Amino acid sequence: MSTMKALVMPEIGRTAVVDKPIPEPGPDEVVVKTTHSLICTSDLHTVKGALPVENGVTLGHESVGLVHAIGSNVTGFHEGQRVAINAVIPCFRCRNCQSGFPGQCQGALGGYRYTAQQDGNLAEYFVVPFAVGNLAPIPDSVSSEAAVYACDMLSTGFMGAEHCYLKLGDTAAVFAQGAVGLSATIGLTLLGASRIFAVESIPERQQLSRTFGATDIIDFTQGDPVEQIMAATGGEGVDAAIEAFGFPQTWEACLRVTKPGGRVSNIGYHGEVTAPLQVPLDAFGLGMADKSIHSGICPGGNDRMQRIFALLETGRFDPTLMTTHTFSFDDVEKGFSMMEQKMDGIIKPLIVF
Amino acid sequence: MSTMKALVMPEIGRTAVVDKPIPEPGPDEVVVKTTHSLICTSDLHTVKGALPVENGVTLGHESVGLVHAIGSNVTGFHEGQRVAINAVIPCFRCRNCQSGFPGQCQGALGGYRYTAQQDGNLAEYFVVPFAVGNLAPIPDSVSSEAAVYACDMLSTGFMGAEHCYLKLGDTAAVFAQGAVGLSATIGLTLLGASRIFAVESIPERQQLSRTFGATDIIDFTQGDPVEQIMAATGGEGVDAAIEAFGFPQTWEACLRVTKPGGRVSNIGYHGEVTAPLQVPLDAFGLGMADKSIHSGICPGGNDRMQRIFALLETGRFDPTLMTTHTFSFDDVEKGFSMMEQKMDGIIKPLIVF
Amino acid sequence: MSTMKALVMPEIGRTAVVDKPIPEPGPDEVVVKTTHSLICTSDLHTVKGALPVENGVTLGHESVGLVHAIGSNVTGFHEGQRVAINAVIPCFRCRNCQSGFPGQCQGALGGYRYTAQQDGNLAEYFVVPFAVGNLAPIPDSVSSEAAVYACDMLSTGFMGAEHCYLKLGDTAAVFAQGAVGLSATIGLTLLGASRIFAVESIPERQQLSRTFGATDIIDFTQGDPVEQIMAATGGEGVDAAIEAFGFPQTWEACLRVTKPGGRVSNIGYHGEVTAPLQVPLDAFGLGMADKSIHSGICPGGNDRMQRIFALLETGRFDPTLMTTHTFSFDDVEKGFSMMEQKMDGIIKPLIVF
Amino acid sequence: MSTMKALVMPEIGRTAVVDKPIPEPGPDEVVVKTTHSLICTSDLHTVKGALPVENGVTLGHESVGLVHAIGSNVTGFHEGQRVAINAVIPCFRCRNCQSGFPGQCQGALGGYRYTAQQDGNLAEYFVVPFAVGNLAPIPDSVSSEAAVYACDMLSTGFMGAEHCYLKLGDTAAVFAQGAVGLSATIGLTLLGASRIFAVESIPERQQLSRTFGATDIIDFTQGDPVEQIMAATGGEGVDAAIEAFGFPQTWEACLRVTKPGGRVSNIGYHGEVTAPLQVPLDAFGLGMADKSIHSGICPGGNDRMQRIFALLETGRFDPTLMTTHTFSFDDVEKGFSMMEQKMDGIIKPLIVF
Repeated sequence: MSTMKALVMPEIGRTAVVDKPIPEPGPDEVVVKTTHSLICTSDLHTVKGALPVENGVTLGHESVGLVHAIGSNVTGFHEGQRVAINAVIPCFRCRNCQSGFPGQCQGALGGYRYTAQQDGNLAEYFVVPFAVGNLAPIPDSVSSEAAVYACDMLSTGFMGAEHCYLKLGDTAAVFAQGAVGLSATIGLTLLGASRIFAVESIPERQQLSRTFGATDIIDFTQGDPVEQIMAATGGEGVDAAIEAFGFPQTWEACLRVTKPGGRVSNIGYHGEVTAPLQVPLDAFGLGMADKSIHSGICPGGNDRMQRIFALLETGRFDPTLMTTHTFSFDDVEKGFSMMEQKMDGIIKPLIVF
Repeated sequence: MSTMKALVMPEIGRTAVVDKPIPEPGPDEVVVKTTHSLICTSDLHTVKGALPVENGVTLGHESVGLVHAIGSNVTGFHEGQRVAINAVIPCFRCRNCQSGFPGQCQGALGGYRYTAQQDGNLAEYFVVPFAVGNLAPIPDSVSSEAAVYACDMLSTGFMGAEHCYLKLGDTAAVFAQGAVGLSATIGLTLLGASRIFAVESIPERQQLSRTFGATDIIDFTQGDPVEQIMAATGGEGVDAAIEAFGFPQTWEACLRVTKPGGRVSNIGYHGEVTAPLQVPLDAFGLGMADKSIHSGICPGGNDRMQRIFALLETGRFDPTLMTTHTFSFDDVEKGFSMMEQKMDGIIKPLIVF
Repeated sequence: MSTMKALVMPEIGRTAVVDKPIPEPGPDEVVVKTTHSLICTSDLHTVKGALPVENGVTLGHESVGLVHAIGSNVTGFHEGQRVAINAVIPCFRCRNCQSGFPGQCQGALGGYRYTAQQDGNLAEYFVVPFAVGNLAPIPDSVSSEAAVYACDMLSTGFMGAEHCYLKLGDTAAVFAQGAVGLSATIGLTLLGASRIFAVESIPERQQLSRTFGATDIIDFTQGDPVEQIMAATGGEGVDAAIEAFGFPQTWEACLRVTKPGGRVSNIGYHGEVTAPLQVPLDAFGLGMADKSIHSGICPGGNDRMQRIFALLETGRFDPTLMTTHTFSFDDVEKGFSMMEQKMDGIIKPLIVF
Repeated sequence: MSTMKALVMPEIGRTAVVDKPIPEPGPDEVVVKTTHSLICTSDLHTVKGALPVENGVTLGHESVGLVHAIGSNVTGFHEGQRVAINAVIPCFRCRNCQSGFPGQCQGALGGYRYTAQQDGNLAEYFVVPFAVGNLAPIPDSVSSEAAVYACDMLSTGFMGAEHCYLKLGDTAAVFAQGAVGLSATIGLTLLGASRIFAVESIPERQQLSRTFGATDIIDFTQGDPVEQIMAATGGEGVDAAIEAFGFPQTWEACLRVTKPGGRVSNIGYHGEVTAPLQVPLDAFGLGMADKSIHSGICPGGNDRMQRIFALLETGRFDPTLMTTHTFSFDDVEKGFSMMEQKMDGIIKPLIVF
């Protein structure tokens, strides 16, 4: 068997499952046989043309699997080992990496390689570059179905919470409770937030949000969420707000619901609306309210992955609750289109190979 | 009723309940009618002579109650309001306070006023100095029995965890699971530790430790705890270790179980053994292992108290599980002596007025 | 002598020197006899109507002088002592103060009291509220002419540099080299920046900027400053950029000249243009470039003042080089109007009483 | 020419210059032709037997030179290019590296490779492992004589200052003004310390210390340095103290001269006295004085090197002032023995090839 199936974007607006050669690892690489993947809304954005990628590139960046072939310079892994790889794959050697910004490896967003710079991993086999620093063994006690959430959702969501720079007992709001917003809610709970406002209107997501630690659900169909949060806090607002939706209104809402001294943490992907984001001067105290705004890309590397696995091992939270649907890879396009149309309360579809 | 009962130390080695005048508040002070107190091991140390205090001083620094009388410069409180006060009471105006070390108010350990600088609060009434920045209203949803843990145990324990400077998913060890060590375990759980090793031999405390988030119990009667932790981590050690016992052996163990780059966080009160603490050169990498050692006193002020109350309101943990015994104030000396003799599995005795 | 002269704003658009009663100190206050003041561009903004203040209020917030009268609760000062007071005067007791944002005392920008909440200090005498935490003795070796720069210019400029969160050897840009921008340049030099780009077209300010540590002067009349900085850094940009002008173009330029991972530090007062500030999505990596934006108000309190005095004592920099003009208080309105019209290369006019 | 000269330790207690083959680079390596080296006191310690190294190993870890041969996986360099390499050479891929402790690469002190794990660079040619992340081009405007100080002295000294976690205007003390202590003084000046106490008795070093920013020289032959610093600060002490000597007395002095809340930063190599370091309980506030102790090894990697070069380019300080003696490589053993005997006011001998 020297060919494999891969989900590709033949051209903007279309997906297809095609045959590609099974890749061979370079000296610093490992090839993984995929067992489980998640479809990401970023893949949907890519197919819509948000990212300039080559026609025919394989999609996907959230996959786990088994070690298939190991490059000559890579030690510490064995064939058949259960492994995961983050969506962001830093070289860890360039100055941006050494300076503390590995996601910006060799340039802006440069750590994001799958689909953007090379074939992604919604395929039966995929290449892991810079494997020594990036390939992560999955502990026996962590299921692959849970581990696959570490590739992007949990790592990005937790970064959203980390960028809130919480003091113990700080309050926070998260705008939108899709998979990354829900993961941010888990992150806030893990990092010592007290009251957590989750802005969401879909009942299933509201319920899951409570399970993950939200104390207050704000349904934006019942009134302006900024007003609701301000009213619930006696006009004070929250210490930090996470933008997990990617739209100008939620961005601005984050600035409005934060107290003086508050932090706005962006994890939303602002690829749908191209106008500049706006910072309203009243909410920003004319530049003097001691507010800060933080942004970032999914933190990669196998240390990050193993930290998340260690947290999964504690059993404090269960990310597989976000898996609303499961498809075999034969049906990956169906999962893709359900996600695009937000059908049937879908949060995150799991693809099983 | 112009006199009240107070637990005092008439001389080193003795306690007594005596009558004292009910205090009047100065302009910046509030007088509180005590409803609930906890006895602290520090009180035991004080009676043993560890702290140079005046004979006859009232003991105690962990109490909550009702506002009884309000000084002329204090606004925002009303008589009968349920309130708490931290064991440490900074002025918040001196340079140490402004520099970020309010516990060191006006000098080393200067924020520690009760017993050390003025009458403590194991009495029917007590004075709250610098009330505007220190008196904390207790939310309706937080019981006084829980709130009283914020005065010292939770605030100190949480500081122990804060001084671990955890990255998400870091591992930690806590040496001893008395009330402050258990509180540190809660703190580690709140702040994103993954694996938490709790060193403790008493079964009831081990059980409580698990409830509060410890993943691994290390029973030091079953072998050297350093060796046990190193074995359990494949020889790597932990990212941070909390000294919550106050003895040279546990201090040194903290240095030995931490990885290169690790943090040692001291919350133990080292008043029993007067020899200098030792930093073994091998565990310290001859000064080059990137380890750090952190210390501190219970963080005070009403912002800290209200942050802890906000966390209590989430219901994520229940400090009253540490209350193993309850006494009326008439029996306070009995509680005191049971604590001294560590009788009957006592962790923390609650005094009810 | 029971009356004094004060520079007031009788109504929007006008200033006048009028007689007012010499104030008496309240219990926590001190009254200072002014010796030296600086006029701030904020005063100009206020007179233009940017800040909703009462007609007749005294202007000014950058003054030093001699202790004249001491409130009953204030200790540690004596009549005739040379003292300074920051433009921002926190209570240091409220939750915002305790949480680390004293500039936001009791609410957004609440530490800014002079002119905004009470008479300012462009007057022969002025009141210092919360004196224990705010009145700062001036060391003998620091001249009043230098000390007066600590009240706002150096404290704000240094904050601009602090908010760059520099790692040793980071590069930075400062947009505009007025007094606060020049102070930010001093701050960057003090905090370990390597290459410092100062954007300024006026030769005298360019020269002063070099004296204060700028390594590269960017003259915006010679081409787009963003392009010039990008070209000078081989297309990489800088690690941090300080907005010290208060206009949308320079704000946006800051976002554009920073590298992935870069920090934008705002100290400009955005009171002239009321449209929201804009964050261009390309420069912001669609929210994923690991950039952060920081803002704040002049850090107040007497610890801050004494830290700046301690730095002045080292002789590493001389803020009085920014004093381009000196007026007696009789001519304060002349200084005011020269500053408004940016006449004669004026940077900062000193008022001597 | 297939052999070269190298300074080796044939056995404990002896040095010799011997012939060795010129090394060939592995795929990820570069071989450098040495032009300038510094002898380090660590080399002296090694020869005394402090470090378990193989007999015959080449000494030295502070060298710069010209690119001689480039491994097959290394890009971005060319033959003849002027380059430097830090004394510490992290892989940047292991979990310790990714976690922020690259000096502890793959284990305690693991980034320290020269002499400890492979031949050092007091030789005519030397190997640079992990070259992509570690080999640093030297800018044209930085002399090799200055650049060689970045390899260890400046990087370690600056870390000493970084570990003081200074707030602007904090005060500091440095114990001993050898080359690394002097570099720490430069670092404190670069990072915003105000008053800097330098403890040193040798007049030439005192003078250099002032040139590098020390404001107060404490001559320990004139009285206990702790008492002198306490007296000079009105009994308050300093905010941070750097141990740059490596002896128990100076370590303890650091704990004694720091204020409550103070930081002790260790850069001394404690290889001479094997007894544990001691933390006196009074100076440590029985564990409650909010003091912290920090340690570390020379920060490596080419980002660090280039940051230091960028600072050298500003001209704010001149490390070559520490070069008291210059020898050709033929006389390297003479330099070695002069350093061992601290002859002729030697601070740092430069070896020219």
